[in-house]
Amino acid sequence: PERSKAKIVEFARKIKKVGQDDPRRINHSLKVGLAITLVSLFYYFEPLYNGFGDSAMWAVLTVVVVFEFSVGATLGRGLNRGLATFLAGTLGFGAHHLAILSGEKGEPILLGLFVFVLATTVTFVRFFPRMKARYDYGLLIFILTFCLISVSGYRDDKVLDMAHRRVSTILIGGLTAVFVCICICPVWAGDDLHNLAATNIEKLGIFLERFGVEFFHKSGEGESINKASLQGYKSVLNSKNIEESLVNFARWEPGHGRFKFRHPWKHYIKIGSLTRQCAYRVEALNGYLNSDIKTPPEIRGIIKDSCKKMSSESGKALKEIALAIKSLTPPSSASPHIVKSKNAAKNLKFLLNTDLCKDIDLLEVVPAATVTSLLIDVISCTEKIADSI
Amino acid sequence: PERSKAKIVEFARKIKKVGQDDPRRINHSLKVGLAITLVSLFYYFEPLYNGFGDSAMWAVLTVVVVFEFSVGATLGRGLNRGLATFLAGTLGFGAHHLAILSGEKGEPILLGLFVFVLATTVTFVRFFPRMKARYDYGLLIFILTFCLISVSGYRDDKVLDMAHRRVSTILIGGLTAVFVCICICPVWAGDDLHNLAATNIEKLGIFLERFGVEFFHKSGEGESINKASLQGYKSVLNSKNIEESLVNFARWEPGHGRFKFRHPWKHYIKIGSLTRQCAYRVEALNGYLNSDIKTPPEIRGIIKDSCKKMSSESGKALKEIALAIKSLTPPSSASPHIVKSKNAAKNLKFLLNTDLCKDIDLLEVVPAATVTSLLIDVISCTEKIADSI
Repeated sequence: PERSKAKIVEFARKIKKVGQDDPRRINHSLKVGLAITLVSLFYYFEPLYNGFGDSAMWAVLTVVVVFEFSVGATLGRGLNRGLATFLAGTLGFGAHHLAILSGEKGEPILLGLFVFVLATTVTFVRFFPRMKARYDYGLLIFILTFCLISVSGYRDDKVLDMAHRRVSTILIGGLTAVFVCICICPVWAGDDLHNLAATNIEKLGIFLERFGVEFFHKSGEGESINKASLQGYKSVLNSKNIEESLVNFARWEPGHGRFKFRHPWKHYIKIGSLTRQCAYRVEALNGYLNSDIKTPPEIRGIIKDSCKKMSSESGKALKEIALAIKSLTPPSSASPHIVKSKNAAKNLKFLLNTDLCKDIDLLEVVPAATVTSLLIDVISCTEKIADSI
Repeated sequence: PERSKAKIVEFARKIKKVGQDDPRRINHSLKVGLAITLVSLFYYFEPLYNGFGDSAMWAVLTVVVVFEFSVGATLGRGLNRGLATFLAGTLGFGAHHLAILSGEKGEPILLGLFVFVLATTVTFVRFFPRMKARYDYGLLIFILTFCLISVSGYRDDKVLDMAHRRVSTILIGGLTAVFVCICICPVWAGDDLHNLAATNIEKLGIFLERFGVEFFHKSGEGESINKASLQGYKSVLNSKNIEESLVNFARWEPGHGRFKFRHPWKHYIKIGSLTRQCAYRVEALNGYLNSDIKTPPEIRGIIKDSCKKMSSESGKALKEIALAIKSLTPPSSASPHIVKSKNAAKNLKFLLNTDLCKDIDLLEVVPAATVTSLLIDVISCTEKIADSI
């Protein structure tokens, strides 16, 4: 009993964590429950269909399948589903009509041929990167509806009736999903994307601001800051896929809050890739925090102040850029920090040019030199990010 | 007409490229076409259902939705769909029965409550990272089937009949999809994962093998190799997501070819993350290929041979590791290269220790020093990768 009790506590803790990581998840779950209940009961009471017929089913199915976490994803799926059903329905009706005309013998052959050619072609089209990104679901529904309509053994007038009922139920299901999704605590993919871009830059800034201090921190000289708290930037390294899907969702969204319709969402991919360029440098820098090779004190003395300055100023600049993104203002407040960090880099170059090193073990200089040159890289990355906004 | 002709040619070129990038895509498209045609015509001819009834529809729907590119994905979806339909059907039947017992007034209230609670809970469960990775589709189908069954206005015996027909049609659809997917040119996610791990390591090896020569290549000293051909490693940086989904698919697959069932697929995630660690260093190295700071000739002379050796030997070691993975043998042939590269690193350290530099501009040493230390990092990464296999 002790063991199972511990397991239950552990499980409850996990549930709480999933909810706390993003409280909007709880809202989303309640919204999905609400939308499905609405549609289900609507059809349960609807006297027109007396009970739960086969068409009403499509309304529930549409709500379950279309309702996604963000507004953009929901709209994208809903539009894909609606459009694909309409187009494939029309085409399928045509194919069905054509097959009937060809007589009883030719009908199944022609139908089989149509279905085979269309399913093969559309499946192949799904491999096109652009189609996959935006219309994958629509293409799937296109195949589905075409097969259902064209192969249905019914006569023309019954097919039309069926198509009419399907379209209307899908409309009701889709509209319910979109309505609940937008009207109750909407989650905009565009907002998420915008915040992701800002926090990613901020994470790099937090690391850089403290890196200089950490790197020149002598062991034994008081407690070092917890190094684990500096590892927040790691998530930036693998942010590409989340970013791309958010961009695809955001492009479906209408104007909302501070963003107009046709906000240049694609630009965030460019900012993101520059951020990752910078993150790779930071990852390399991080490797030197735990390096065992000690920099000789003479060199330390020369580079310490400039390096600290370079690191903290570029960190501050990145943080300012993140703030500017968040408040949608031009990142002018970042430029003094960039200038300062560039001056520190110039200063360091000057120091190194005059202070020719005598009798210094080149090997021991390596980590310090690497850190210096990576920091110079980081500064140029920072500048590029600031320019791109 | 000139313009539209150019556009058509461009479009044809794109189609060809998608096909050439992975010829299995064409096979896959044909397989999907075949499976859907089979199921469609089967139901078209089936006298039992006289024509295309509402249950037969589920077979086509199942094929379209379940048929994925790799065997693992198809099996995963099929099992998810089958199991979820069965469980939700049973539960839905129970809920339906319970609601009827509560009388005519309580029925819709109780039904609405059931649907709301279940939809909300299951939607929340979909946010659990582990559930999302393997059972996301099953949970979706679970909500769907539960709602359809429990809210259906039919009486108990009709519900049972409906459930029976749905399960049999889904079985037929699912089995057709799985059969065509496995029996005709199967695409195993496990094979893809295995090859991905090997080629990613190989790409790093190719870069490193040529990096030393490129870096110490004097401009004007004959044509340099095309630098673009060295950029193949870039795809390794963002390989995490593809890897994770392939692992999830591979875990559904039965034993095939050289892999037994329950092959330790999760181990590939570890290998992948070590590979990416190495790739981040390589990315930093790549930045120095185009650096403008010239290394002074004295230093060049000292480090050139050792660095070249370190780079080419670690590259060779990685290539050997990739070969060993491909042929499923222990990577013993890589160890002499690792030893050689370590010796080169030791040698370099020794040289730098004796050859104290006099009158050398520290600034100009920076790129060389960085490259050296990154190479040392790369060697330790290489060793870790070799150990992990």
